[in-house]
Amino acid sequence: MIVVLSGGVGAARLLRVLRRMAPDEEIVAVVNVGDDLVLHGLTICPDLDTIAYTLAGLSNEETGWGRRDESWRVMEELTSLGGASWFGLGDRDLATHLYRSQRLAEGATKTVVTAELVERWGVPVRLLPVSDDPVRTRFSTAIGPLSFQEYFVRHHHDVTVSAVDVEGADLAHPTPDVVRALHEARRVVIAPSNPVISIGPLLAVRGVHELVAARRADVVAVSPLIGGRALKGPADRLLRELGFGGGHAAVAGAYEGLLGRLVIDESDAAEAPALRAQGLDVTVCPTLMGDPDRDARLAAAVLE
Amino acid sequence: MIVVLSGGVGAARLLRVLRRMAPDEEIVAVVNVGDDLVLHGLTICPDLDTIAYTLAGLSNEETGWGRRDESWRVMEELTSLGGASWFGLGDRDLATHLYRSQRLAEGATKTVVTAELVERWGVPVRLLPVSDDPVRTRFSTAIGPLSFQEYFVRHHHDVTVSAVDVEGADLAHPTPDVVRALHEARRVVIAPSNPVISIGPLLAVRGVHELVAARRADVVAVSPLIGGRALKGPADRLLRELGFGGGHAAVAGAYEGLLGRLVIDESDAAEAPALRAQGLDVTVCPTLMGDPDRDARLAAAVLE
Repeated sequence: MIVVLSGGVGAARLLRVLRRMAPDEEIVAVVNVGDDLVLHGLTICPDLDTIAYTLAGLSNEETGWGRRDESWRVMEELTSLGGASWFGLGDRDLATHLYRSQRLAEGATKTVVTAELVERWGVPVRLLPVSDDPVRTRFSTAIGPLSFQEYFVRHHHDVTVSAVDVEGADLAHPTPDVVRALHEARRVVIAPSNPVISIGPLLAVRGVHELVAARRADVVAVSPLIGGRALKGPADRLLRELGFGGGHAAVAGAYEGLLGRLVIDESDAAEAPALRAQGLDVTVCPTLMGDPDRDARLAAAVLE
Repeated sequence: MIVVLSGGVGAARLLRVLRRMAPDEEIVAVVNVGDDLVLHGLTICPDLDTIAYTLAGLSNEETGWGRRDESWRVMEELTSLGGASWFGLGDRDLATHLYRSQRLAEGATKTVVTAELVERWGVPVRLLPVSDDPVRTRFSTAIGPLSFQEYFVRHHHDVTVSAVDVEGADLAHPTPDVVRALHEARRVVIAPSNPVISIGPLLAVRGVHELVAARRADVVAVSPLIGGRALKGPADRLLRELGFGGGHAAVAGAYEGLLGRLVIDESDAAEAPALRAQGLDVTVCPTLMGDPDRDARLAAAVLE
């Protein structure tokens, strides 16, 4: 079994790549729920949805969120009512959140609802929310405390962050499925998601950091940075703002005590010696996904 | 001030008729919330919405619920996910419920949210939910206990009812606006809504029955029956099943102790002598709405 610790877009793409090299039934994504939110009464799980939509071929590849062939009837009407419209919810996407919210109200866990949706969409890999308990990533910023989506979407992650807290993480438990997967995996992959605000909150769930550390020899992280920058999103900026510094060393710092190996992009090969000098096993290969040949090399590097 | 105790469709139509004869600022609808529900995470207030949509010219006159020029993108998608689709929610209609659910989550009362929506739609009469506290109409039926919408929509009110209970009514309080309106009204009108399942739950809210009874001399009810049948819905059937019998006498029975006067349809004039013999003041006039001349006569009869 290959367990992939996952945020949203970057993880979705890596999972798609790994499927080229490993049977679907061996792949398990353990997914961050720290940026889940309740808005308009609806429980929304952006990372789970991004991964499911991507693997089902339903995602909007341009925006990196939401569905393709989307319409906006509800949102247009909500905007005309003066409702909160900063978090875009297309009509098809809304159906996901209505379904989930109703099932949760009926007593189903997030794990069960995710399995139901994934089956309906024909997504052939297992998606496991790291926890069924409430976990909320919160930001202390220059303009005050913000929720994840206020920071990320409403303010376009364009404010200075002084601290990231994961509310509820110390009370949340990983699900039994997650614990089992982390015990049994032959490889634990940390996806090229944001170390601070996607993987960090996942690891903050009670006991998860320890479970991953115990598998250190089998843990491989794909760095989300290329040329010192995140392909998308504020990973590099946040690593700096929170004192981890820059480059892949910052990623290694955020994952201190967890990494058996770090995969970095071939364009950053010059960073490898210094990382290795710190005792880190480093693989240099293409990490920018989208080209079949390069993707195959990345998958091989991760799974080798 | 004219206060109209209101269910959904029948009340919406009467309010539209009364606006021909009374200034908008004098009309206040006190609206049943017993069939409000939470579905897919959304708080839905069918009676408030039906009235607001009707008065704003946004209602679907054919179905008697929902909006005109409606689309069904979300519902189609939800159905394809295997979600509960028995309660039809159009895209535009959904925006109302998203708006309301978010505002309620932010701490606004149903009264405040209703005022916001009504202002946005340009509805020029005041709509007051009878209570901001949770009230739930429940049915004991031949096939077991049902919620309002399960009984009404899912089972098309086609099951035998042995009892109607209004959960929470003894703990719910009428809002201060409702109490004031019932004190100050020069006329309290009971709309031609279902006496058992629309007006009954409204009157069941703690103290409301007493407030209305205290205004008995100024209370006028418009009977929802014509020729012994409800124009729409199960009023006649329910009155019978719950032991009130048939005809306008059953309506009078359901409102025992409350009526200063009962308005019945001209086609039922033959029932008037027996009702008057019971000491009831009866006005005979057209109650089937839709024709301007007849509507004017109904409005005059109610407001005389």
